[in-house]
Parts: sequence; C-alpha cells; structure tokens
Amino acid sequence: MQKPLILVTNDDGITAPGLRALVGYMKEIGEVVVVAPDSPQSGMGHAITLDNTLYSTKINTDAKNGAKAEYSCSGTPADCVKLALQELLDRKPDICVSGINHGSNSSINVIYSGTMSAAIEAGIEGVPAIGFSLCDYSWEADFGPARDFVIRIVREALVHKIPKGVVLNVNIPKSDSKEIAGIKICRQARANWKEKFDKRTNPMGKDYYWLTGEFELLDKGQDTDEWALANGYISVVPTQFDLTAHHAIQRLNNWNLNE
Amino acid sequence: MQKPLILVTNDDGITAPGLRALVGYMKEIGEVVVVAPDSPQSGMGHAITLDNTLYSTKINTDAKNGAKAEYSCSGTPADCVKLALQELLDRKPDICVSGINHGSNSSINVIYSGTMSAAIEAGIEGVPAIGFSLCDYSWEADFGPARDFVIRIVREALVHKIPKGVVLNVNIPKSDSKEIAGIKICRQARANWKEKFDKRTNPMGKDYYWLTGEFELLDKGQDTDEWALANGYISVVPTQFDLTAHHAIQRLNNWNLNE
Repeated sequence: MQKPLILVTNDDGITAPGLRALVGYMKEIGEVVVVAPDSPQSGMGHAITLDNTLYSTKINTDAKNGAKAEYSCSGTPADCVKLALQELLDRKPDICVSGINHGSNSSINVIYSGTMSAAIEAGIEGVPAIGFSLCDYSWEADFGPARDFVIRIVREALVHKIPKGVVLNVNIPKSDSKEIAGIKICRQARANWKEKFDKRTNPMGKDYYWLTGEFELLDKGQDTDEWALANGYISVVPTQFDLTAHHAIQRLNNWNLNE
Repeated sequence: MQKPLILVTNDDGITAPGLRALVGYMKEIGEVVVVAPDSPQSGMGHAITLDNTLYSTKINTDAKNGAKAEYSCSGTPADCVKLALQELLDRKPDICVSGINHGSNSSINVIYSGTMSAAIEAGIEGVPAIGFSLCDYSWEADFGPARDFVIRIVREALVHKIPKGVVLNVNIPKSDSKEIAGIKICRQARANWKEKFDKRTNPMGKDYYWLTGEFELLDKGQDTDEWALANGYISVVPTQFDLTAHHAIQRLNNWNLNE
C-alpha cells in the first residue's frame, strides 16, 4: 500500500526548528514533501502574491530528516500551498500539515496566522489540513513533549477524515515541568489584542511606530481553546472558511435596505 | 447632535478612485477621517506588520473631498485600522467603512481580501464595520450607480446596529447598461480559484512564476452572494471572525484522541 503523502509547510520559514520537528514526526507516518517560505512570514494572515514574481528553489534534502523533497519559496504561506499543489507535487497530498509554529495561534490569533492560512488554503483546495502551533515564541522551544500527540492527531485525521470545509487549528501548551494533560476539542475563545504603539523618532527625525500589544481574553467559557491551554491541554479547534454569520441573516433582512 | 465619525480605509491605497468615491459618499452622513495604505495592498489578507516599522503621514486634505483629516500609512490595511483606532483618531469612530475596492470580494475572495481584513479588524476591536467592493478591477470603474445604495447601507447600519461579532461584506455588481436591481442579504458562496502558474525564465536564466487562476463557483444556491451579483443585485454577507466550525465539534469528539 502506498504511504500517505504529507505536505509540510509553515510561516516561520524553511529553516525553523518547529518545521524540522514536524518533518521528523511526519516521516513516521508517510512520505514527506516540504514547501515552505524562504523567510519568516509571521503575521502574514492569508496574504497571497498578486503583483510580484514567485521563486521556488529545490533544496538538497537531508537524508536524516527524511523529507523526500524540499522546496523553499519566495512567497507567503498561502502561496507555498498553491505552488505545491499546482506545480511541485506529482500527486495530491493525503494531508497538509503546517507548523509547528513558534508561538500561539489560538483564539483571535487564527485571523493573523500565516501557519493557519497555509492550512486553510489547503482546505479550500480540498486537501485535509491541520495547523500546529506551540505556545512558545522561542526559537529554542522544546517540541519534544508534543511529539506523540502531533503524530496521533495526524493519524486520527487520516483514519476518520476531517469534515469537508473544516481545517484543524491545534495549539500546544508551552512545555514546562508539567506534562501535557491530553487533547480537548474546543471552540475559538473570544479575545482581542489591546494594541499599544511604541512611537519613536528615526535618525532622520521622522516619527515611526512599532506595533505591540497585550492579549485580552474576553471569554470565560470552559469549552474554549484558551481554557484548554491554560489547563495544560492541547486545543483542537475545527475552523472553517465559510465566514458567513448565518445567525445574522434574518436580522439583516429586517433592515430597510430596499425601497 | 454630534455627527457620526466615519473611518474610511481600503486596500488599493490612499489615492485609489474607489476610496475617493467612498469619502465623497460618507461626507453626506458624517465626519470623515481617512487612514489608508500608502501603496496598493491587494491580496494582503489579514496581514499585520510585526517585524517592521510603521510610518504614518498626515496629508493636507482637499476641502472639496471633505475629509476632516487624512493619513497615509506604510502598513497593511489591518495595520491602518489599528493605528487609526489607537493613535490617530481622537474618539472611537461610529463606523469603519473599507473600500470601495476595485474588484470583487465575494465568496472565497473574502479570505484573501485586504479590504475585508480592514473591516474585520475594526469589528474585532468593537467598531461596526462594512467592506465595500465593486466587481470591476478597472482603475476607471464607475462607482456612480452604487452611490445611493452605499449611503443607504451605511445609514441603516448606523440606525439598526450591526450585530456584535459581525462585519458586513458588500459587493456591488459591475456597472453596465442594466440598473442595480436592489440589495440581497446572502451567504458566502462556496467557490475556489483554480490556480494556474505562469512559469517564465528571468534574464538571468532563473525560473519564476506568476500566480494566475480561474474562479470556480461550486455552489448552485440562490441565497448566495454570487447568485445575487449574477442577477444584478448588491450582495450583503454578514461575516464573522469566530472561525469555529461548531457543527464539527461533536464529530471530532468521536475520534480517538485520548488514550
């Protein structure tokens, strides 16, 4: 029987330790091809490259890491998936996994996430997809404790099939002395970033800003991804790209929009 | 009584004719402040600027256009909204309108849309918001036939209030001989882009790609935005940033994710 073909991508760039960890784990399940950005793309959301050229470079693969083929791409995470599916892979992958991101993509972060946009792009194109993120921004983050869970989630997704129109957003609590408590299926918590702009003056005398902010959780539910993570669980949120707020349609029909 | 404060932004950049049209229409309703990208940002999705500086320049406003103040910003559409709300406006706007985009943001295009990401960013921050797009990519597109409808939609939104957690995605059919038939509240149609990569070789002998594609409608429903637009109606889709696929939670709970 043919091994499953697994497309691995991310938004931290092809050299990121989180991607290297994921490649290693996926090698235990199937045949791995990497198509990932040639530079970090954090916060890229679902950007695609419309007005610029895209370059792709085939990289000599490291037999130890075990990817069958690796390509770096000059574009965004969503570009990488499009290029992989249309140009670089010789068959449709059985699953696309994105990450493991260095940093959380839980709750509202999913909106800004390049990691999840790659997974969502695969989902839009009919390829089952999962984004993995570790709630630790460090480049030296320890992905080890997540290993068995990541493998189990991908195996289960291959067996049970991810529902159509759905992409999984998996977040893993930061590794510390405590063990991971398990896996919880969750909804996306309501949350927000309270922006703060750090205003400075450049050497030429012109003002500029750095975007910073503080995370603000607006949700006390115990069925959310934030609750799960705070309690040591891996959160799995089924995420969709039909953005319609179906519950609001009736209400808008009561507005006076036609004379 | 204080006039409503209206934040106008877009993704085609501060000089775009579609933004100029929207400023003119909004002037009839309230006090207008523009904070928009200094260069085109189409296809930027919900990108934000994390690793770079942001510049903002106050522009001398043209009394004829009637904006109270205008700022160009070096960032993405989502950055513009964050900067406007935290730094540039002296009070919270009553509504944020984004556009009018030169080109469709209906159905799956909402995912890639900088226009909609600006509106969604406002929504996340608790500001009622609407993205407007005209299904005509031309820089010389005729926004005139949409004028009264755009004004009516914004007035109705100010009166009835947009439901919390919801942002409106308004698409306007391309102007031709036919009049606009009216306004329909819709759901997002299922659709996809069939990518085609146009592969070329640069003068240095290196291969590169242009991303192109064909729109593929996968939905025959008559309650979708694509149906409305094809039949001469303006489509209004209530759009949400809670991406949870609530219907899939039960199904995932049946997977074997915990030993």
